[in-house]
Amino acid sequence: MSLSSSLRDPLALLQALLRCRSVTPADDGALGVVAEALEMMGFTVTRLAFGPKGEETPNLYARLGEGRPCLCFAGHTDVVPPGEGWSSDPFAGEVREGRIYGRGTADMKGGVAAALASVARRLEAGPLKGSLAFLITGDEEGPAHYGTRSVLEWMKEQGEQPDFCLLGEPTNPTEMGEVIKIGRRGSMNAVITVRGVQGHVAYPHLADNPTHRLVKILSDLTARVLDQGNEWFAPSSLQITSIDVGNSATNVIPATAQARVNIRFNDLHTGESLSGWIEDVVACHTAHGTVDVSISGEAFRTIAGAEVEHLSQAVEAVTGRMPKLDTGGGTSDARFITYCCPVAEFGLVGATMHKCDEHVSLASLEELTQIYGEFMQRFGV
Amino acid sequence: MSLSSSLRDPLALLQALLRCRSVTPADDGALGVVAEALEMMGFTVTRLAFGPKGEETPNLYARLGEGRPCLCFAGHTDVVPPGEGWSSDPFAGEVREGRIYGRGTADMKGGVAAALASVARRLEAGPLKGSLAFLITGDEEGPAHYGTRSVLEWMKEQGEQPDFCLLGEPTNPTEMGEVIKIGRRGSMNAVITVRGVQGHVAYPHLADNPTHRLVKILSDLTARVLDQGNEWFAPSSLQITSIDVGNSATNVIPATAQARVNIRFNDLHTGESLSGWIEDVVACHTAHGTVDVSISGEAFRTIAGAEVEHLSQAVEAVTGRMPKLDTGGGTSDARFITYCCPVAEFGLVGATMHKCDEHVSLASLEELTQIYGEFMQRFGV
Repeated sequence: MSLSSSLRDPLALLQALLRCRSVTPADDGALGVVAEALEMMGFTVTRLAFGPKGEETPNLYARLGEGRPCLCFAGHTDVVPPGEGWSSDPFAGEVREGRIYGRGTADMKGGVAAALASVARRLEAGPLKGSLAFLITGDEEGPAHYGTRSVLEWMKEQGEQPDFCLLGEPTNPTEMGEVIKIGRRGSMNAVITVRGVQGHVAYPHLADNPTHRLVKILSDLTARVLDQGNEWFAPSSLQITSIDVGNSATNVIPATAQARVNIRFNDLHTGESLSGWIEDVVACHTAHGTVDVSISGEAFRTIAGAEVEHLSQAVEAVTGRMPKLDTGGGTSDARFITYCCPVAEFGLVGATMHKCDEHVSLASLEELTQIYGEFMQRFGV
Repeated sequence: MSLSSSLRDPLALLQALLRCRSVTPADDGALGVVAEALEMMGFTVTRLAFGPKGEETPNLYARLGEGRPCLCFAGHTDVVPPGEGWSSDPFAGEVREGRIYGRGTADMKGGVAAALASVARRLEAGPLKGSLAFLITGDEEGPAHYGTRSVLEWMKEQGEQPDFCLLGEPTNPTEMGEVIKIGRRGSMNAVITVRGVQGHVAYPHLADNPTHRLVKILSDLTARVLDQGNEWFAPSSLQITSIDVGNSATNVIPATAQARVNIRFNDLHTGESLSGWIEDVVACHTAHGTVDVSISGEAFRTIAGAEVEHLSQAVEAVTGRMPKLDTGGGTSDARFITYCCPVAEFGLVGATMHKCDEHVSLASLEELTQIYGEFMQRFGV
């Protein structure tokens, strides 16, 4: 289909995106739909592939105008696998009873379509006061190593510096207008390995049981209340995700024991401070322990200043609801964007994301398009 | 080979036994060697096969005379697999520098050979005052379901009731004459399973992490000092042998967690009392836990009366050492025999048992044969 006649219609854009089977890491033309729409609107579009040769992650950066302020819409076109049990083809973009169904309608091809349509309408209304940009990745649902993070590095090299970024992830639990996310908790994983001395259970004094030391370590780790949360963040939480020894012999004390923990932490901690704490606890119980830490993202929060106020007003203007400013839930690419510029997240209703029969209402898609338009006006772009 | 000329020679008997590849559950003629020797000495030999059809466990019971007291020699002819790294064929019975090498030399074909030779010598010396029996199984190193335990049941049915049983397991740590075992700790295994509610690590309040409950359970179990031991027994010991969750997803709270524990316990506890304790601890931390208990054997101790005194004197007469009466180490078939009659264990030096290049000295084999002879004399058989 040609997009020319339908750039101002988020439904047509969303259907074009849904029909690309862009199950991460596949793209299947999804970024091409975005690129074509942006080029038709006059954007300078740069397709950016990062990562190991032969398995590059496709990304896109686009810019229109040079003026200030510069607003950047961010998002992703990859989706999680459809899974089983759908009532209709998850890649057909079928409309039934005022809803559009398909994998990615909520998370977040709908957000991308609404941003594109809102910009098309803005450009119809007259010349930009500031400038606009789009940062769209094809790898948010996968490892995300060569997605938004790599594009941000490239932008820095190019001197591309937005003043504010609006990420269209589905932030509303059940109704449009409920939640703007202005931060996210940090997330880190630690693999704790304790080495002991193997032996026969009948002679424990000749062995050193690593499971007993690991249980003490995990007991100490889970006993600590990390914090009570604060004005913007829920309390930090440590969860053991696995403990694995794999010893099937009932008369043998095993040689090693391993546990995995994940911490979702607020801005009262850093990945480094928590890593140090875990290492200290391990060292208290064994000289033969190792901690392998991977920090997925630090906690961050965008100061709730003028831009967030503009966004809240835009949401209220369209939905009649004053949204709550929140930092809950999982992680998003905002954890990378926050190092580039202030970022807030607002999108569709996420109730069906990652589930079968994922859908959004046509009304919400139109509302989101209008909210983005109201925000551009208040932001002064 | 013919055994006729060499019944009084434990080395010849041991070599004949070693050359049978009786890696549990295989027999390869080992019990036949024992049966032939006993029949030549006038014993009434009954071969006893118990267990599921096609995979019966071979066993042997033999009796000579009807008088009292009746002394029963007990033992096994099956061995553990040889493993790698031997300096010579583990089934050749090679003699080098005063030692005989082979799988089972210490554990416990050597003990069986010494018992046979001692009886041959006793019979040369004159008629029995009491009577003698042999209880030899081909399944002590395996599951032991249809070995000694089944033979004892059969003996009960037949009215075969020894007054004392001498089990020839290798009881001496490094030198002949160090240790007589007059009991063994009990052993039990428990599999503890905790069911929780699976969920996303970012939303722990919507899940119930079973690993956290399991860690508390294991922490309580390992924190308790079961006892300080007593005159005859070492302290009881609980060892966690495995903890297994098997969750590879770092963002998922798992649905179930499982741990395995083994307890070696003295006569201050029973399998039942310890099972009840574990169930209580689990119930303290979750309503969704199960404990699957398997009791391998209860703790037992033979009263150190006249028979044990005779055995100690016999050991001292031959070795010059007064042996320590002990209940340490792993389990043995004495845990079954104790329900039939008083039982003590004395055999060769066990330092190389279950290891490569398992061996015993020729001197120790002769000493053990003489000790069994001295014991028969004192016991009055």
